[in-house]
Amino acid sequence: MSLRMTTPPPHGGRLEERVVRDPQLAKKLAKGCPVYDIKPTLSDKGVPVRNVYREIMSTCYGFFSPVEGSMKEAEVEKVLNERRLLNNWIFPYPLVFDISEEDYKQLGVTAGDRVLLRLKGKPFAILDVEEVWRIKDTTELANRVFGSPEKNPEVVQEAFNEKHPGWVIYKSLNPVVLAGKYTIINEPKFRAPFDRFWCPPVKSREEFQKRGWRTVINHQTRNVPHVGHEHLMKNAAYTGDIEPCHGILVNAIIGVKRKGDYPDESILEGHEAVNQGGYIKPERHMVTYCLWDMRYGNPLESMLHGIIRQNMGCTHHMFGRDHAAVGDYYDQFATQTLWDKGIPSYGFDKSICEVEYGLHIKPQNMREFWYCPVCQEIAYSESCGHTKQKEKFSGSFIRGMVGEGIFPPRVIFRPEVYKAVVKWWKEFNFPFCNQNYVVAQEQKLEVDLPDLDV
Amino acid sequence: MSLRMTTPPPHGGRLEERVVRDPQLAKKLAKGCPVYDIKPTLSDKGVPVRNVYREIMSTCYGFFSPVEGSMKEAEVEKVLNERRLLNNWIFPYPLVFDISEEDYKQLGVTAGDRVLLRLKGKPFAILDVEEVWRIKDTTELANRVFGSPEKNPEVVQEAFNEKHPGWVIYKSLNPVVLAGKYTIINEPKFRAPFDRFWCPPVKSREEFQKRGWRTVINHQTRNVPHVGHEHLMKNAAYTGDIEPCHGILVNAIIGVKRKGDYPDESILEGHEAVNQGGYIKPERHMVTYCLWDMRYGNPLESMLHGIIRQNMGCTHHMFGRDHAAVGDYYDQFATQTLWDKGIPSYGFDKSICEVEYGLHIKPQNMREFWYCPVCQEIAYSESCGHTKQKEKFSGSFIRGMVGEGIFPPRVIFRPEVYKAVVKWWKEFNFPFCNQNYVVAQEQKLEVDLPDLDV
Repeated sequence: MSLRMTTPPPHGGRLEERVVRDPQLAKKLAKGCPVYDIKPTLSDKGVPVRNVYREIMSTCYGFFSPVEGSMKEAEVEKVLNERRLLNNWIFPYPLVFDISEEDYKQLGVTAGDRVLLRLKGKPFAILDVEEVWRIKDTTELANRVFGSPEKNPEVVQEAFNEKHPGWVIYKSLNPVVLAGKYTIINEPKFRAPFDRFWCPPVKSREEFQKRGWRTVINHQTRNVPHVGHEHLMKNAAYTGDIEPCHGILVNAIIGVKRKGDYPDESILEGHEAVNQGGYIKPERHMVTYCLWDMRYGNPLESMLHGIIRQNMGCTHHMFGRDHAAVGDYYDQFATQTLWDKGIPSYGFDKSICEVEYGLHIKPQNMREFWYCPVCQEIAYSESCGHTKQKEKFSGSFIRGMVGEGIFPPRVIFRPEVYKAVVKWWKEFNFPFCNQNYVVAQEQKLEVDLPDLDV
Repeated sequence: MSLRMTTPPPHGGRLEERVVRDPQLAKKLAKGCPVYDIKPTLSDKGVPVRNVYREIMSTCYGFFSPVEGSMKEAEVEKVLNERRLLNNWIFPYPLVFDISEEDYKQLGVTAGDRVLLRLKGKPFAILDVEEVWRIKDTTELANRVFGSPEKNPEVVQEAFNEKHPGWVIYKSLNPVVLAGKYTIINEPKFRAPFDRFWCPPVKSREEFQKRGWRTVINHQTRNVPHVGHEHLMKNAAYTGDIEPCHGILVNAIIGVKRKGDYPDESILEGHEAVNQGGYIKPERHMVTYCLWDMRYGNPLESMLHGIIRQNMGCTHHMFGRDHAAVGDYYDQFATQTLWDKGIPSYGFDKSICEVEYGLHIKPQNMREFWYCPVCQEIAYSESCGHTKQKEKFSGSFIRGMVGEGIFPPRVIFRPEVYKAVVKWWKEFNFPFCNQNYVVAQEQKLEVDLPDLDV
């Protein structure tokens, strides 16, 4: 019997870090290239719903390994049909660099050309065009990305529509796709507090080793943690190999916000407060993030999350109910099903850890936590028998309390976490993302770019 | 990657159930055999320290598979030198049927003879003698069983002596060993409440299957559970395969008592109260026991515990600090070391799950739990950073409280569990085992025997 787990290999066998750090080389690479200024993807209503810069960042820093850039038409087809890249490694979503017909006309590039991508007016990355192709129908694309109750009866409960933010992203894409590899040539600098939590795969793997973490379990978040989240983290982490996981990695998904979300700054510092407050000590707990405009694809999203965290070097990933879900489009255990026995209609007749070219990060499928007044503690649904007395955690209830300026009791919200919320509440004049925050965030983004004269 | 665990095979490959249930066959087998009345092993001071009937029970019902009886001299030598049986399967302790020279003279059997063993004056089992041999020096045997700081410097900190109850057992053995297989021919009937918790390996394996428990973690106990034990159980159980363990098996070691121990009846019903009170619901929690006069051999004891629970069908076994320890003879993490990397001086240069003919039950090595007034909960030493504020669980402190008639607060002792203690306190006029209990228990034992006319 083999007892010890080891850091899994990157998805696809090797980490793709496509970042040029030598300014001379950067200039040489960008020399004479046609220039394109990255713009946010806007919905029909003109609302920013995505910024491709985040995909470029996550691709070039290796979070999405083995993906290296914007996908060719055949690769998108294969992803939609089999949820696999052309090299057969599993991958849930099409990722493309899309521009409008007008911009394309102006840019006038074809296969073999290189484009210099600018962000906030500064050189950022290059895209080596390998193919130019067109999305015929973005609504059809959006439907195919997520599936439907007819095609995916195991897990899809409702047809996707404009109320689903991920669907809206695909629906809002521009028609022309420049497919090819990205290379960052001018590393963006993260604004505070993002700078402190930036830890791409190469660095996180080093960090785990430095900390002596043989086993690390990931916690996915887009939330300021209440005590229920804290218990999910620390209790899921009792799995491991011959002893509980050495490390707990919080990896927040940072990207376009929806109204009512907590600001990204509160999320990161709220999680940090959990370790600074000693609820999970910092020696065992580390807060990081990945740039990604969440697609809310529940099982599909969980596959991407698994890829990101495997690339970061995690051995385990915890999954609760309604993972990365919005609304009732999916069955609430769809993600756990994908990791447990697979979802044939997406192409997986067994767990995505058991298929060929699948993942090597191990799921920890968790049920519910609630507050139990009989046990007098946060209890786990599979242990606690006091179902009549249980008091469910409600994120919206706690958000309501916070919004009313009520300091929640420490058994449901840690005071140190609350302080982090208040800090950013003062900064943004509201504890949650409002229209101002959403728009400002998509203008400022998380980064600034150094000057680079090309 | 293989995700799912399955019920491990019995230790040694097959379950040994050596119980004859047909009275006609029983009579035939026992016919004309010389008779020996089982007596307790007495210490120098005349105190009962062991009853071989418990070993016969645990052997014949398969808890000790692949052991089938009392060991030959060569097997005892091999166990002492390599901690392996003659068939190479690992095993920690010599197990022998020992009698005095006087009794031997009277019995006058040799290899090839069969002895009828009586318990409480009734036919109980037969022993087919394969070898008669002598223990030359029981002090030397006792020393060799447990080891010494010189020979086992990795884990033994103090020389064993008459303060160690396991050492005293071996020291107190009679000189003549009748080696050979046991067969129970008249199944004892357990007294209440023991009858309700009797679940030998064949039955426990059936029960796990009936309950749909793919993964089951064992909790070793000789204690009435306080809330720290409850948390050890339910938190260790978050390990599993793709999800937390389906079942939590409490398997108490029931045997000779020491003064100050909780009575066996309180231990069993105290654990049952945990599930009846809904702290770990009965669907996930099952209380059982194994008859064994504990040797307190810490790592060696843990090996036997692993064998017992693997035979019962458990996939996991939790181990805390000072597993099955008494005093400071062993390093407090000696058991975890044996299961983690092995103890070369006992013959294991890697985990006893990784050696040939080793175990197939997986360890879950756990650190400490304490009450944390900042977290306001039972906290785990590897998560909680409030080491200045922590309030350690002290079994002796809680026992002190109980002894004074103080009802402990429900965050450290569940009221339902306390009730079970009180119930037996009334029965025995004292919450713990006193001299009366110890002597009475060894006279009554846990069983009565039906009549069987042979």
